[in-house]
Amino acid sequence: MKLYDLDLSGNCYKVRLFAALAGISLELQPVDFLAGDHKKAPVIELNPLGQLPVLQDGDLVLRDSQAILVYLARQYGGHQWWPDGAAQQAEVMQWLSAAANEIQHGPCSARLIDKFGISLDKSRTLDISGIILPVLEQHLQQHDWLALGRPTIADCAVFPYLAVAWEGGIDLSDYTAINAWMARIKELPGFIPMPGIE
Amino acid sequence: MKLYDLDLSGNCYKVRLFAALAGISLELQPVDFLAGDHKKAPVIELNPLGQLPVLQDGDLVLRDSQAILVYLARQYGGHQWWPDGAAQQAEVMQWLSAAANEIQHGPCSARLIDKFGISLDKSRTLDISGIILPVLEQHLQQHDWLALGRPTIADCAVFPYLAVAWEGGIDLSDYTAINAWMARIKELPGFIPMPGIE
Repeated sequence: MKLYDLDLSGNCYKVRLFAALAGISLELQPVDFLAGDHKKAPVIELNPLGQLPVLQDGDLVLRDSQAILVYLARQYGGHQWWPDGAAQQAEVMQWLSAAANEIQHGPCSARLIDKFGISLDKSRTLDISGIILPVLEQHLQQHDWLALGRPTIADCAVFPYLAVAWEGGIDLSDYTAINAWMARIKELPGFIPMPGIE
Repeated sequence: MKLYDLDLSGNCYKVRLFAALAGISLELQPVDFLAGDHKKAPVIELNPLGQLPVLQDGDLVLRDSQAILVYLARQYGGHQWWPDGAAQQAEVMQWLSAAANEIQHGPCSARLIDKFGISLDKSRTLDISGIILPVLEQHLQQHDWLALGRPTIADCAVFPYLAVAWEGGIDLSDYTAINAWMARIKELPGFIPMPGIE
């Protein structure tokens, strides 16, 4: 099972992290982002959006880190990471959507500007961060994990771009509950970091 | 089962549309957006993000249109709309993420600017639309539906903001396959429109 991967990408790290926590083996295929290889074959043929990660498992090709998390958890990872019931799936889904929406266009995009020089509206990324971070903080003041009272793919989807938010100039030091939650994630058996995470 | 609803919101319409197609009864609770009631109790207490829709089913409270679609389909709608298998769920999930990411920050945000006067970067919404629309067009040239060869919650999540994209100044007339797909959706038994859809 091959993951087209970029070590500096938080979206790729979501998948690497979950696979490490769940004990799933991945063959990493590094893609040279600076050379634009994500916009060339074979990546662009596997994902016409030209984004990483891309997962290839036999004939199955998947783009989008959240979809890959659902696949890996459902196929290999067990119900503890991605549950079976309607209310439970929806509870996790709320955070998968936040990862694709507010986290992607908030902390992730702020980091794209500061770390990679991508031309985006910094103030907009800070506005979106200013909406989602207090909601996360409030939630984590009352819950140890994002959903279901245990680690799930929701935590794997939201954690990466918060853990490297400082690379986008976003200071999380006042968010006590978010920091405590990130510390809990780092203590999970099998945890692996990415560049930018100590 | 109560849906806190705004008739002009495509995110709310995703839920109304799916419920109509799947034969699920919803009690609609209109929220006065112009009066800012989505930022006041009871909505803000049910969803601290202050966004619509919010679903209340007994003690269960859900935000995020994609999460609500997963819940309704899993709980009430049958497997044809949200499948059980890993690869099948992931295939649908790719489009739920696109709905939360590229569709939300592309066509949806362009409409927020033009129709509601929200201050966002119009050129950025057009850039994102210019990435996702050709990928959708290419996909729909080869598939009648977004996933699994049949209507799923993926179609319900992506359709609304394309059907009203013209209200954000986005002209879809050259996207032949997208238009044919939208026509197929409009012919589904139980289809209901929203304002802006003829």
